[in-house]
Amino acid sequence: MKIVVAPNALKGSLSARQAALAIATGIRRSIPDAEVIQIPVADGGDGIIDVFHDVFGGEMIRVKVPGPLFDEVEAEYLYLPEKSTAIVEMARASGLSLLREEQRCTGKATTLGTGALCKDALDRGAKTIIVGLGGSATTDGGIGFAAALGARFFDKNNSELLPIGDSLGDIAGIDLSGLTANTGVQWVAVCDVDNPLTGPRGAAAVYGPQKGASQTDVARLDAGLDNLSRCVQKQLGFNHSGRSGVGAAGGLGFGLVSFFGAELQPGVDVVLDAVELNEAIKDADLVITAEGGIDEQTAYGKAPAGVGLRSKQFDVPCVVIAGGINGDISALYDMGITACFSLCPGPVTLDDAMHNATPYLAHCSEQIARLFLDCERNPK
Amino acid sequence: MKIVVAPNALKGSLSARQAALAIATGIRRSIPDAEVIQIPVADGGDGIIDVFHDVFGGEMIRVKVPGPLFDEVEAEYLYLPEKSTAIVEMARASGLSLLREEQRCTGKATTLGTGALCKDALDRGAKTIIVGLGGSATTDGGIGFAAALGARFFDKNNSELLPIGDSLGDIAGIDLSGLTANTGVQWVAVCDVDNPLTGPRGAAAVYGPQKGASQTDVARLDAGLDNLSRCVQKQLGFNHSGRSGVGAAGGLGFGLVSFFGAELQPGVDVVLDAVELNEAIKDADLVITAEGGIDEQTAYGKAPAGVGLRSKQFDVPCVVIAGGINGDISALYDMGITACFSLCPGPVTLDDAMHNATPYLAHCSEQIARLFLDCERNPK
Repeated sequence: MKIVVAPNALKGSLSARQAALAIATGIRRSIPDAEVIQIPVADGGDGIIDVFHDVFGGEMIRVKVPGPLFDEVEAEYLYLPEKSTAIVEMARASGLSLLREEQRCTGKATTLGTGALCKDALDRGAKTIIVGLGGSATTDGGIGFAAALGARFFDKNNSELLPIGDSLGDIAGIDLSGLTANTGVQWVAVCDVDNPLTGPRGAAAVYGPQKGASQTDVARLDAGLDNLSRCVQKQLGFNHSGRSGVGAAGGLGFGLVSFFGAELQPGVDVVLDAVELNEAIKDADLVITAEGGIDEQTAYGKAPAGVGLRSKQFDVPCVVIAGGINGDISALYDMGITACFSLCPGPVTLDDAMHNATPYLAHCSEQIARLFLDCERNPK
Repeated sequence: MKIVVAPNALKGSLSARQAALAIATGIRRSIPDAEVIQIPVADGGDGIIDVFHDVFGGEMIRVKVPGPLFDEVEAEYLYLPEKSTAIVEMARASGLSLLREEQRCTGKATTLGTGALCKDALDRGAKTIIVGLGGSATTDGGIGFAAALGARFFDKNNSELLPIGDSLGDIAGIDLSGLTANTGVQWVAVCDVDNPLTGPRGAAAVYGPQKGASQTDVARLDAGLDNLSRCVQKQLGFNHSGRSGVGAAGGLGFGLVSFFGAELQPGVDVVLDAVELNEAIKDADLVITAEGGIDEQTAYGKAPAGVGLRSKQFDVPCVVIAGGINGDISALYDMGITACFSLCPGPVTLDDAMHNATPYLAHCSEQIARLFLDCERNPK
């Protein structure tokens, strides 16, 4: 019997690794000879760098790059030499959290620094670059990012434009001749939102206001992003502006897809691919995952849903153990989740549940494994 | 797929019948075409009359009989005309709770009234009499009970003795010639203790003090019970004094076994036989039971253990859903319990768990049925 244990962290209580160990302990109590594969997972909700660093180790590289408003910032990214892979979070170089409230001005902000981090990684030999979107101060459609890697943007007078949001409306020509790294490198944009580039659900309209944009700014930036997509269409022959997720991070998703051929992937899929979950579960008898809390939202990009979908792909039952289950979780059933149980052994306080998460998780896993074993032994 | 739902009541929250309905609802959500058999059960802990009345209906018969100290009491028993079965609780006619604290004097107390209730039932045509032991004021070895049905007890001078505990030591002869109902009637003594008749774990030593016996009283009553068993041995040729449970209810267990050939049965078995659980589960695919709280003691005579043992007998998996699970429950695994889950969907208060027991129970059952179904569909 092969059982794959692929839990998320139980926030505030157990890391994914600790949760995996507790579940494995419970399983072995009921099936001592089971092959139990522990694969801690994540959905990128806590920052893709931390997730990868936790799972794969690697080196944190610290680089001075232009910040969102061109002032120098020191930002880190993770490099995995054995995998020639860099993991970059755009928020660390071009993030809203790098600005004081009164500095926020998304029209003036740039993703140049994020591109500069990637350039450093490419210089180190990176062949795969994973860029975590989200938390951006910018609405520049990724032109700052592209500029850091050699792209140039011109207005109708052929004057080179500063790669910021407010320049988008003036773009008339794009020069990608100096662009490196758009071939021979695999780009992955990690994105857990589904916004298109423009329109009422676009990057400017939805996320602009929280980055300091007035309604006028939003309209200008939205028109600018639209102009960018038209220029790309005209010059490169394709238009990804309607794709789900290209509106992430002020349109950096669009820039990565358009200029670098990046794949847009939900965080959970990036993580589950990286930990090679499919390899583990394809011949498993049972998968057990875990999460602090599950609810109606869990079906949308959270770790248990990702693990469930992959289990379904290989027709392997997948059980979730949650700290708490709230509301209607039936959407999870369609995502390969066989059943959900709470680790709470009775009416306990949140404090008790968090403090005793290890024994409770082990006990619940033991029960699931017992029931599973009994069914397997006595098929009707 | 056939699933038997056989829960105990969840005390303070749901009756066994309500619990069965909630569980069945959850199962049908995941397996709409399942054959779900609802069999509310009990373990006699709440009084065997209430349990039978709840399950089978029947008539409550009110009779005036001698109380523990011979003063008249009105006591009820349950009669099931279709089954020609009476259910009698000795505590209602000969119980400690019928006496004020200062009246307690177990040496003077008699089980005559309990026998009188049974006589009434026999006159009604009862062919099976179930006598719930426990809660007695008496330590008369059942001679009062037997006397009510025609037995007579004599001292060495051939004077008839009053059928009370203090007479036991004087018994020299037993006349069963007037005894009715020791043939052609099935007697069942319901007993959840395992005490023998005499000695340090006997009826007098263990239960005498709480019935008002001093140490001297205990010694005299213990010797009296010993004398009774010797007289029975001498006159009838058998000695059941060492059997587990004959020390129940001041030795009424012994009297029922010796004079009426009663079977001594744990309450849970009496109930599970009466509801014909075996018939239902022998071809079932899964059994689900429930209980308010399970712990180390649950293995000893509680409903889930009884249901588990019968499931084991037919090699059917049996899952317990509990309000709460406490401590080491591994003894239940040997009693046919496959797995135990709590109905609590997360950290909730006792009040919440009790108030929402119906939806929580349904949700947990749904999950168990889903996991079970998935295993059944995909045997490896």
